[in-house]
Amino acid sequence: MNPIYADAIVFDGLNICNWSRDIFEEWRKGGITGVSCTCGIWENFRDSMHNIVQWRRWFEENADLILPARTTADIRRAKAEGRTAVVLSWQNTAGIEDRIDFLQIFNELGVRIMQLTYNTQNYSGAGYTELADSGLTGFGREVVDEMARVGIVCDLSHVGPRTTADTIAYAKKPPCFSHVLPQGMRDVPRNKPDEMIRELGRRGGMIGLSQFGPFMKRGNESTIADYVEALDYVIDLAGEDHVGIGSDASQGHARPSTFMEWCNHDKGYARELTPFGHDKVVKPLGALAERARLADAMQAAGWSERRMRKVLGENWLAYLRAIWGA
Amino acid sequence: MNPIYADAIVFDGLNICNWSRDIFEEWRKGGITGVSCTCGIWENFRDSMHNIVQWRRWFEENADLILPARTTADIRRAKAEGRTAVVLSWQNTAGIEDRIDFLQIFNELGVRIMQLTYNTQNYSGAGYTELADSGLTGFGREVVDEMARVGIVCDLSHVGPRTTADTIAYAKKPPCFSHVLPQGMRDVPRNKPDEMIRELGRRGGMIGLSQFGPFMKRGNESTIADYVEALDYVIDLAGEDHVGIGSDASQGHARPSTFMEWCNHDKGYARELTPFGHDKVVKPLGALAERARLADAMQAAGWSERRMRKVLGENWLAYLRAIWGA
Repeated sequence: MNPIYADAIVFDGLNICNWSRDIFEEWRKGGITGVSCTCGIWENFRDSMHNIVQWRRWFEENADLILPARTTADIRRAKAEGRTAVVLSWQNTAGIEDRIDFLQIFNELGVRIMQLTYNTQNYSGAGYTELADSGLTGFGREVVDEMARVGIVCDLSHVGPRTTADTIAYAKKPPCFSHVLPQGMRDVPRNKPDEMIRELGRRGGMIGLSQFGPFMKRGNESTIADYVEALDYVIDLAGEDHVGIGSDASQGHARPSTFMEWCNHDKGYARELTPFGHDKVVKPLGALAERARLADAMQAAGWSERRMRKVLGENWLAYLRAIWGA
Repeated sequence: MNPIYADAIVFDGLNICNWSRDIFEEWRKGGITGVSCTCGIWENFRDSMHNIVQWRRWFEENADLILPARTTADIRRAKAEGRTAVVLSWQNTAGIEDRIDFLQIFNELGVRIMQLTYNTQNYSGAGYTELADSGLTGFGREVVDEMARVGIVCDLSHVGPRTTADTIAYAKKPPCFSHVLPQGMRDVPRNKPDEMIRELGRRGGMIGLSQFGPFMKRGNESTIADYVEALDYVIDLAGEDHVGIGSDASQGHARPSTFMEWCNHDKGYARELTPFGHDKVVKPLGALAERARLADAMQAAGWSERRMRKVLGENWLAYLRAIWGA
């Protein structure tokens, strides 16, 4: 394994895998220190709680491989102990239903990153596939304020353009794009405008780069070298301190699959939102167990050790520490 | 009591009273044949079910005064039996939470009129106090389609301007404004543009006129004669077949009161939405028991018996029959 990689903190800003011990073993093989793990998309309050209970079971049964992370100290401890730190995260705020106070409850239970909305309209704002973008709603302002107050990261990856811009302008703590690509390299609605990426960097936010082939410059032909090129592109926009990995790894799920179809329908069952529940999607970073190849590609592109360590994980940890306070 | 009134079907398109036997007795004294009764604003699925159970209890305990109405035949039967027919209705679609199929369930349980959204953003669209108007969302289209399919009246009274226009254009069955006033008489956001009222008439929709003083031409100085003037104004826009009463009677509730404060905060507890949780509101139609005075005022304004009967109730019944199918 690449020696810089082996020594570095490696944090992945988004995985949405078919969770099981197999995945946890892959993380260890891949030398991955910490991962933000999607544990909520369309679920309501009760089902979101159920997901947390399921993760408690996984933490207990796989304590040799993983640990729950609520602070960046937990992530550094995972590195020291040769385990992987799991940050529970949501790709929607549906789980709080209509109750702002439930943000604090879920935060206490370990959900420390939340995307404001997933693809469609919710109480707080619009997703990027919605017919029109409401912008950040009045309720959304209160949600964003409470997330800042209790220290939950506000993620805007799948959020619509107007809601994204409103939230960046409104939020008292800088949001992140946990898993995105830049529109300057491929102009599709799911990618973020270069100016928005630049603005997020200016404000101390964080951009995790997705490896979702169809939205990369060369589409499903993209390689790991293309991914490093995209990292360089985004670093030029946002600055070297504000860019990291957000792989959107979905290992263990097929396309199509019941899970992918659920993701790709509004509320899990209503209208279809994108073709990516069934269309081909190449993810050039490859299997989680082979993630160290990314460091080789960074070196091949002439990256310094300093830049490598920042982008592999230190930037994410500095950002998370700023939002979480620990 | 005015003899035409005494013989007529009298339907009120919206009451939001402090429900009790006192109110049901007032209806009988006021010769009111049928009423659409708000039994849901911010409530989630479970609490909406609880409201229905409460109404079942009232129907049982007050069967000498009221009966549950699911068809216009039920309303005509109430007239024949000297009782008041209660149509359960919602001022929001929060009660279905994220499940389109729950529309059919609530319809079967007697909720036959639903306002798409109450004041703020929900999954289907925006209310009139929202920061910006999303328009009818993708989910909202599916909700409106399902309401048309199962025969639930779609009410747009508190809905935002863009969502209102979108829904009128999109809906396969004409929506209603159950309790509104025209912007042509007072230009406030809660009132509806004259053109929108005209369009709803053209499409076979229904407009129930509110008696909410602050939004009438002469504000809280308004009298019952001003209310009849407003009816005439709206008839000129929408046609004599498409206008009725939607009094927004809130008898038994004080301002301020816990209930009014709950109505006037987003989701019942978040930001304050209007000053009308505590500000003075005169309702010129007066007490429910004195509703027959409206017929006297219609006669004083030179109305024909035919117009009186239509506006007092027959227009509502024709419209409800068209949507409900019975």
